[in-house]
Amino acid sequence: MRKIDVKDIENIALGAALLGAGGGGDPYIGKLVAIGAVKEKGPVTLLDPEEVPDDALVVPIAMMGAPTVLAEKAIGEKEYETLYNMMSRFYGKSIYAFIPIEAGGVNSMLPIAACAKLGIPLVDADGMGRAFPELQMVTFTMGGMSASPMALTDEKGNCVIFETITNKWTEDLARAVTMSCGAAVSVALYPMSGKQLKQYAVKNIVTRSQRLGEAIKTVKNCGDKTPEEHFLEFSEGFKLFKGKISDVLRETRGAFNFGKVILDGIGEYKGKSAYVEFQNENLLACVEGEILATVPDLICLVDAETFVPVTTDALKYGKRVYVIGLKCFEMWRSPEGLELVGPKYFGCDTEYIPVETRCKGGAADV
Amino acid sequence: MRKIDVKDIENIALGAALLGAGGGGDPYIGKLVAIGAVKEKGPVTLLDPEEVPDDALVVPIAMMGAPTVLAEKAIGEKEYETLYNMMSRFYGKSIYAFIPIEAGGVNSMLPIAACAKLGIPLVDADGMGRAFPELQMVTFTMGGMSASPMALTDEKGNCVIFETITNKWTEDLARAVTMSCGAAVSVALYPMSGKQLKQYAVKNIVTRSQRLGEAIKTVKNCGDKTPEEHFLEFSEGFKLFKGKISDVLRETRGAFNFGKVILDGIGEYKGKSAYVEFQNENLLACVEGEILATVPDLICLVDAETFVPVTTDALKYGKRVYVIGLKCFEMWRSPEGLELVGPKYFGCDTEYIPVETRCKGGAADV
Repeated sequence: MRKIDVKDIENIALGAALLGAGGGGDPYIGKLVAIGAVKEKGPVTLLDPEEVPDDALVVPIAMMGAPTVLAEKAIGEKEYETLYNMMSRFYGKSIYAFIPIEAGGVNSMLPIAACAKLGIPLVDADGMGRAFPELQMVTFTMGGMSASPMALTDEKGNCVIFETITNKWTEDLARAVTMSCGAAVSVALYPMSGKQLKQYAVKNIVTRSQRLGEAIKTVKNCGDKTPEEHFLEFSEGFKLFKGKISDVLRETRGAFNFGKVILDGIGEYKGKSAYVEFQNENLLACVEGEILATVPDLICLVDAETFVPVTTDALKYGKRVYVIGLKCFEMWRSPEGLELVGPKYFGCDTEYIPVETRCKGGAADV
Repeated sequence: MRKIDVKDIENIALGAALLGAGGGGDPYIGKLVAIGAVKEKGPVTLLDPEEVPDDALVVPIAMMGAPTVLAEKAIGEKEYETLYNMMSRFYGKSIYAFIPIEAGGVNSMLPIAACAKLGIPLVDADGMGRAFPELQMVTFTMGGMSASPMALTDEKGNCVIFETITNKWTEDLARAVTMSCGAAVSVALYPMSGKQLKQYAVKNIVTRSQRLGEAIKTVKNCGDKTPEEHFLEFSEGFKLFKGKISDVLRETRGAFNFGKVILDGIGEYKGKSAYVEFQNENLLACVEGEILATVPDLICLVDAETFVPVTTDALKYGKRVYVIGLKCFEMWRSPEGLELVGPKYFGCDTEYIPVETRCKGGAADV
């Protein structure tokens, strides 16, 4: 157990944006909301999963929708309390703690804000270890857990509770409502016991985000290593490309941000080109016609100077970035994991090959 | 209080299909479901609204979606019980009785089936006195009542509860879920007390449907009057046109059936032409370029020989029909009523003029 204060939030936001793999929303917006709540109500208690009683009711909360919309829509005062009340009423039992459902600039932050506002602890765990665009894409699904009852509320005060036959149905029905509500809403889903949490959650992800954030901030003070070497070392990342954004294609459809970013190589990649496809999160990185990484591994774009993560909604012409590959949480590499979040699910016509295998002797070793 | 048996159901289905004004679904399908349930469980008790205690929980139930889809999708065994349980659980109180939300071939029948299955009474009242396509279009809205909590379930077992800030939001969110569930679902909404029922419902509509059905069946045994005279007399209808269907334009969009039926005059209308526009229900009838009736008045197509109502989903080339106008429930003619269901709401570029005024000296008097 430890307390999360304003400085920790800054670092968590930064590191979670890296793990967001392009998605998870704008870390600046998320940070403002979390810091505002903590300044008002005081630091949030972060629990290790092992500290949660087996029979406690633990609920992931998140924003659902298109990240570009998240950044423009106001986040109201009442959503967290509404979700808390809807879920507590359903179970006839108070919620013991919230957890984030994914790592990302917004969805790592809102649970902190919610915990501050409601005075309950946050658990150091999530359901993805990164960000994914659809709500059945969590380790909890592999644990046979149900996304429903799922509570949804918007900033206007509309409330919906879903109880569905599969997690894909939860996604489909909640997505339809999300679109009708203006493409961004607050949700609570995958309610679970402390026991289930310990079995299936991706543990210590909040702390990992914080450590990554701290390292990014100090990337230039790294003794005899170059910042690049230092970044690749602490993030355990694979350098896939370094380039200047020459084009960004975007489409907001079905409450998702779809698109593709085109890069012209710089430095040792001069004369080469690459592209990264995304659906909220980055799905696939291709350099000189060769695929170097795909979901579920993390494909992260970071600023070529500061190493600050660049989310898909912040991509713009002329920006210089590294494309970095990170290994995903091990459970995603199982057949069940790949069925949920493998490249085929996202319509990418390739088998999943781990990023460390693809990069061995590939274009990354230029 | 009286009992509804199989013979009554036949007549209610027929009469309700007339009041459905082209919508409300296929009376044959609805009838089969209601008769099946009554044969299995016995007759249903029909209560006069005055017989319902003021503090009783009364809930309208219905199918929501496109009538053409209703006719193809199976109606499962469990939907009524699921809705009953969802609503009772929400209120912590058993449902005393169901009522239909509208008159129509399907939506007058399913509440009978539900009451038979669950062994609770039906109340002789509804919220429209006809059929309308959207769920906020009920007298209850004018009474300031909320459509939500609204329970929705599909034949697969997905369940959703909505609590919304306005009835239009209930419509928008429930419609989005309905589309995702395949354009037809079962719903319970506008839960109300016995007291509210007595104040705002359209009373005795089940009995009115039954009397209309009985009269349609005996339309040819009418002494010295022609069947046409007899039909117009007992239905209190205005003859707008008689013609042969020469074309039907259809589109299923947003879980609605939109379209237009074109008619070539027969009999005294020979050489003239007319059209009727619809959104599930008939919206507007126009003869020789002159509008003769619009919503909220009822525009009903009936078979030119048998006077059996023809729903919009059963329209086809060559069919000979009368176009009949019926006065709507008085409350719909108020400014509040016209705001909800007047021609402007449906995108028809005309003011509302009562059918009896439009027909005075108009083409109907050919």
